[in-house]
Amino acid sequence: MATTERWRVVLRELRDAIRSGEYQPGERLPTVDDLMERYSMTSRPAVQKVLAALASEGLVVTVHRRGSYVREYSPIDWHPGAFEHRTSRRDIEGAGQDAWAADVAAQGRVPRQEIVVETAPAPDSIAARLDLARGTEVAVRRRLRLVDDTPFQTADSYYPLWVAEGTPIMSPGDIAIPGGLMAAAGHPQVRFRDEIVVRMPDPDEQARLSLPPGTPVAEHTRTGFNSSKRPVRVIVTIAPGDRHRIIYEVSGQ
Amino acid sequence: MATTERWRVVLRELRDAIRSGEYQPGERLPTVDDLMERYSMTSRPAVQKVLAALASEGLVVTVHRRGSYVREYSPIDWHPGAFEHRTSRRDIEGAGQDAWAADVAAQGRVPRQEIVVETAPAPDSIAARLDLARGTEVAVRRRLRLVDDTPFQTADSYYPLWVAEGTPIMSPGDIAIPGGLMAAAGHPQVRFRDEIVVRMPDPDEQARLSLPPGTPVAEHTRTGFNSSKRPVRVIVTIAPGDRHRIIYEVSGQ
Repeated sequence: MATTERWRVVLRELRDAIRSGEYQPGERLPTVDDLMERYSMTSRPAVQKVLAALASEGLVVTVHRRGSYVREYSPIDWHPGAFEHRTSRRDIEGAGQDAWAADVAAQGRVPRQEIVVETAPAPDSIAARLDLARGTEVAVRRRLRLVDDTPFQTADSYYPLWVAEGTPIMSPGDIAIPGGLMAAAGHPQVRFRDEIVVRMPDPDEQARLSLPPGTPVAEHTRTGFNSSKRPVRVIVTIAPGDRHRIIYEVSGQ
Repeated sequence: MATTERWRVVLRELRDAIRSGEYQPGERLPTVDDLMERYSMTSRPAVQKVLAALASEGLVVTVHRRGSYVREYSPIDWHPGAFEHRTSRRDIEGAGQDAWAADVAAQGRVPRQEIVVETAPAPDSIAARLDLARGTEVAVRRRLRLVDDTPFQTADSYYPLWVAEGTPIMSPGDIAIPGGLMAAAGHPQVRFRDEIVVRMPDPDEQARLSLPPGTPVAEHTRTGFNSSKRPVRVIVTIAPGDRHRIIYEVSGQ
């Protein structure tokens, strides 16, 4: 079962060395010549095959003429199953902050958000989730979320106008309201349906999030329902794989 | 803000045509010559750039000398937040089946599992989650899960021996026990902690799941706790992005 081709053995050893932290994020790997010597390989193409495999696994990034580097990887834990509660809890650090920002700050990192508010026709997938006719205008809050000044995720929230109009939802900028925006708008949510699709980014996402080649993303779509079971908000979050660990706590009873 | 380079416009149009189903999964796209004519492009490299971008987004697969095909995409909805309950519910189709199989069958698809049971030293990440010393032997149930005879995911369950020994957990093959294996073993779980990491597959995973190049995976790690808050099981599932939509229902209260 186990193959013993030399390059596969070296691939496994280098992968383990990266995962165990022997080579640190951002560190340059030894040159091809050094790797040949260190791992007793006689074939240069075999070493290059190892490096190409590590790159395609997303563990290293190869920079033309400069070498191969261990990908920077200091992800945040993202708690979509919990974060909406936090703004209403006064006992934790960051209560009153935006919920995502509080989650990030609790991990000792520095959150920042760039927010644009507009009204626009709902994309079809959003209209369907909000029980709206195709092309209906909705309020949109588009967020670029940065951690330690690095773009970490985009999160665009869509609201039917019957929910958003005349409420703080339409206010531009980063507004923090204890209890959350939806409660302030008179539509507290009682249930979420989260859908996660894993895919490669499109070129716009790649640019907006400064993604190195070969970085997949989670497209996380949350539909929120009010106590009358009506959908009142959809958030689409694009979360790059190298910057997030997504955590759900599930009650088994 | 919007770029109007011709190839980007064509990329957007072709992407929309694929997402809307105008080009069906498995269908061959028009040839480069046909695309040049259809989209009034004069540059062959520009068309090739469009196709390369679609391939890197995972929307098309290019087969040497044969052309570009829309990637097959008939994913299942996977409900990690719900599936463990199903085997104990007698009112739904498939109760008594393995929980995952019941979930798949309820979607009109045909589930099948290849299962191997063994004892082996726990990988470090598993030992840590199970509160075991490094290298402690654990029971492992390794599953390759197929849908309509296509490999869809691998799911490897790890159990401390104090949980597994002398129970049906150690039985080989696909065992379906109403209420589930863990309850039968005397360790019903009351809480799960799920961690999802999005990454590119390693070559072994790529081979085991027959993944086309450029297909990212979700690595889904579930740790289950019993009523004494002790970890009693870890499942690591590798779910390719092109075969799954991961669904969580979250109570907002």
